[in-house]
Amino acid sequence: MNPVRVGICGLGTVGSGTYAVLTRNAAEIAARVGAEITVSQIGARRDNPNCDIGNTPVSRDVFAVAENPDIDIVVELIGGTTVAKELVLKAIANGKHVVTANKALIAEHGNEIFAAAAEQGVTVAFEAAVAGGIPIIKALREGLAGNKIQWLAGIINGTGNFILSEMREKGRDFNDVLAEAQALGYAEADPTFDVEGIDAAHKLVILASLAFGIPLQFDKVYTEGISRIAQEDVTYAEQLGYRIKHLGIARDTEQGIELRVHPTLIPEKRLIANVNGVMNAVLVQSDAVGPTLYYGAGAGSEPTASAVVADVVDVARTLTAQPEHRVPYLSFHSGSLSSHPVLPISEVETAYYLRMSALDKPGVLSRVAQILSDDGISIEALIQKEPPEGANLVPMIILTNRTIEGRLSAAVSRIEGLEGIVGEVTRIRVESLAG
Amino acid sequence: MNPVRVGICGLGTVGSGTYAVLTRNAAEIAARVGAEITVSQIGARRDNPNCDIGNTPVSRDVFAVAENPDIDIVVELIGGTTVAKELVLKAIANGKHVVTANKALIAEHGNEIFAAAAEQGVTVAFEAAVAGGIPIIKALREGLAGNKIQWLAGIINGTGNFILSEMREKGRDFNDVLAEAQALGYAEADPTFDVEGIDAAHKLVILASLAFGIPLQFDKVYTEGISRIAQEDVTYAEQLGYRIKHLGIARDTEQGIELRVHPTLIPEKRLIANVNGVMNAVLVQSDAVGPTLYYGAGAGSEPTASAVVADVVDVARTLTAQPEHRVPYLSFHSGSLSSHPVLPISEVETAYYLRMSALDKPGVLSRVAQILSDDGISIEALIQKEPPEGANLVPMIILTNRTIEGRLSAAVSRIEGLEGIVGEVTRIRVESLAG
Repeated sequence: MNPVRVGICGLGTVGSGTYAVLTRNAAEIAARVGAEITVSQIGARRDNPNCDIGNTPVSRDVFAVAENPDIDIVVELIGGTTVAKELVLKAIANGKHVVTANKALIAEHGNEIFAAAAEQGVTVAFEAAVAGGIPIIKALREGLAGNKIQWLAGIINGTGNFILSEMREKGRDFNDVLAEAQALGYAEADPTFDVEGIDAAHKLVILASLAFGIPLQFDKVYTEGISRIAQEDVTYAEQLGYRIKHLGIARDTEQGIELRVHPTLIPEKRLIANVNGVMNAVLVQSDAVGPTLYYGAGAGSEPTASAVVADVVDVARTLTAQPEHRVPYLSFHSGSLSSHPVLPISEVETAYYLRMSALDKPGVLSRVAQILSDDGISIEALIQKEPPEGANLVPMIILTNRTIEGRLSAAVSRIEGLEGIVGEVTRIRVESLAG
Repeated sequence: MNPVRVGICGLGTVGSGTYAVLTRNAAEIAARVGAEITVSQIGARRDNPNCDIGNTPVSRDVFAVAENPDIDIVVELIGGTTVAKELVLKAIANGKHVVTANKALIAEHGNEIFAAAAEQGVTVAFEAAVAGGIPIIKALREGLAGNKIQWLAGIINGTGNFILSEMREKGRDFNDVLAEAQALGYAEADPTFDVEGIDAAHKLVILASLAFGIPLQFDKVYTEGISRIAQEDVTYAEQLGYRIKHLGIARDTEQGIELRVHPTLIPEKRLIANVNGVMNAVLVQSDAVGPTLYYGAGAGSEPTASAVVADVVDVARTLTAQPEHRVPYLSFHSGSLSSHPVLPISEVETAYYLRMSALDKPGVLSRVAQILSDDGISIEALIQKEPPEGANLVPMIILTNRTIEGRLSAAVSRIEGLEGIVGEVTRIRVESLAG
C-alpha cells in the first residue's frame, strides 16, 4: 500500500508525543498497518523546543494542513472548541479523515461534526478524548458490541483521583494536595475543569453516547466536584468500608438515562476502588459479559499519543473501506440513535452518606431518624462520636439505603432545619457498583 | 445492507450463549452493524435442552454449515482440534469468514489456518479464545497499535485463580478447593488443563504473538501448574507483602521472548494482585501508554458469547472490505513477522521465593546464604520461624533478587544437598510487574 500521510495540528504535549511515537515506532506501526505512516506536515503557531521534528514541513497556519491535498488524515491536537472546530470541519469538507483528542469538541459539537463527516464519507476518530491511553472507546464500540450496556462508572479525571488518593493515603487536606498537584503539573493553574468535574462530564457524555446509542448531550450532565470533600469524610468513609472516588456514572434505566459526575463512596473491595494516583479506570456493566474494567494512564504526552496513534492506525487500516463498512462514530448508526431521555438528578436513585454536626443533647438522632423514616429512607449504618474535649458538637454520619434524590433532598432540608443540627448536611452519593 | 447470515457450529455452553445473545440483543446489534445478523443454520450433533432455537434449521452434520452457500460467517464452537480444524479449513476454502472461541485450535494450528484464510481473503476472528469476554485481543491488535509492547502478564485461567483466591481468603488447601471447584462446575473432572497451566499456555501463546509479532509457538511455552502450591506458601507470601497468582507472562527482551506460565508472587498493591475468584485480567506494559489492564469474566456461557458476537459484529461491519484493509490476524502483517527466538526457561531472569525445611541447628542459614552468594544471588527478605513444639525442622523462606533461572537452579541443587536441609526446596517465581 502507499504510505498514509498524516498532518499533525498542534505541537503541545499531545502533539509532540504523537510525533515522537509515530517516529520511534514507525517500523512496528508499518508492520501492523501494511503501509508506512508518514507525518507530511505539521501545523503549529510556534515551535516546541522539546520536540525535534527533523525536516518535517511546518505551517504556522493550521488550516493549511486541512487544505493540503497530500494529506490523508488530519490530527487535531490544538484543543479548545473554536479554532479546533473550524479546523475539523474544514478537514472534513476537504474529504480528509480526522483524528482528535479533544473531548470538549466532541462532547459539545460532536453531533454536528459527525453529521458533516457522514455527509463526506470520512472518519472522525477520538479514542484519545476519553481516559487517555485506555482503549475504552474501542471497547464500547466494538469489544462489547454484542451487549446491552447497563451502566458504566469511571475514574476519568486523573487530577481528581490524585487528590482523593493523597487525601486518603496521607491524611492531607484538599487544598494542600491541590497545590502540590498544580506544582507537579497534574492540575492546571485554574483547576476548575478538573476539580469541578467539567472535564469528567465531557468524557462521560461521550461514553454514554457510545454505550447507549443516544446523541451527545453535554448540557444534561449533572456535575459536582470534589472541592467540598473534607479530610474527615475520607476517614469516615474508610471506617465504613468505603473509598471516595470522583466518578462519572451513566446508567440506562427504564425511566431514562442517568448522567452524573460526583464524588462517590464505593466499597473498598471493588477493583476500581483500588485505582489510585493519576490513573484512570472505567468499569462497564453489560448484560452478556457482566462487569469488565479498563485501566491505564488517563493523560500525559505519550499515553494520550498512544490513543491518537491507535486511531491513525485504525483509519489507515480502513482507508479505502466504504463508509458503510466502518465502525459508526457513536457506535450505533445515526439513523438508529435512541431518544431515551436523560433523567434530571432529582429523579436518580442512589444511596447516600450524610455527615452533620449535632448538638450533644438527647433526642437529636431520633429526630433525624424520624425525618428519614417519614420519607421512606432507612439507615444502613451510623457513626456517632463523642464530642472532642470542650466541644458540644458531635459529628453524626449516616449511610442510607437507596432512594430517589428528590426525596433525600427534601429530608435533608428538614434535617437542616432541626434545632439540634448545626450548619449544612454534607451529602455524598454511595454506589455499590455490583453487577 | 443485506442481513449478515451466521451459521453456529456447536450448541454447548458457548454455542447456546451465542445464540441467546444474538437473539436477545438483535435490535442493538443491528443498530451497531447497520444490518441484521441472522442465525441461518445451526450445526450440532444433538439438541441442547437448555437452548430454545425456535425454527432455526439444524444440521446434525456440522460440515453442512461450512458448505451452506447462504452463510457468510461460520462460528466454530465445537472445541477440540480435530473436527474443529477440518471444519474451519473447509469454511475458509468455501470463502466464508470464521469466528472461533477455540484457544487450542488457534494456539496449535493458527499459523496454518491464517495462511489458508489469507489465501482465500477471509477473516478468522478469535476474541473469545483468550480471557473470555475481555476484549484483550482487540486491545492488543488495535487499541495499543501505536506501541512497542514490552511485556504482558495475565490471570487467564479462572479455575486456577478461584483456587488460589480461596486458599488465601479462607486458608483452605489446594485439594479441598479443587474438589469444590469441580462440584461448582468451574473445573473439569480432569482438571489438568486448568490446574497444570495448559489452558493458560494456549492463551499466552496467542497473546504473545499479537503483542510481539511472532508466529504462534505453543511448543515453546514453559508451563508450570499450581498443584504444588501449599497453603503455607500462600501465608508466607502474604507475610512478605505478596499474593500468589497463576500468571501467563510474555516479555520481549534483547535475548529473546520469554513465554512462561507459572505461579508467581506479585506485590499485593498491584491492581492485578486484587483480581480474585474466577475473574481474569491481563496487564500490558507498552512503551507509549505504560501499563494498561483489562479485567472481566474469562469464561462462562454469555461472557464468552459476548466476545464471539463482538467478532461477528466486526466481521459484519467489514464484510465487503478488501482483505488488505482488515486488521491482520496476528496484529502484524504476515510478511512482517519477527523471528526473535523464544528463550528457554533456564535463560529467563526473575526473582524467587524459596521455601525449605532446615534442621534447627546453628550454621544452616549461613551455609544457604553462602551458596546463594557464591552464585551472585542476594537475599532480599527472609522468614525463619521457631520450630513447632517437639519438631526439629524449621521452615526457612527466602526472597532473592533477580537472577538467571539456570543459576538459581544450580544453587537450589546445592542447597538441597546440604546436610541441614531436608527434602526439596519449593521455588516460586516473583515478579514486581512494575513499569
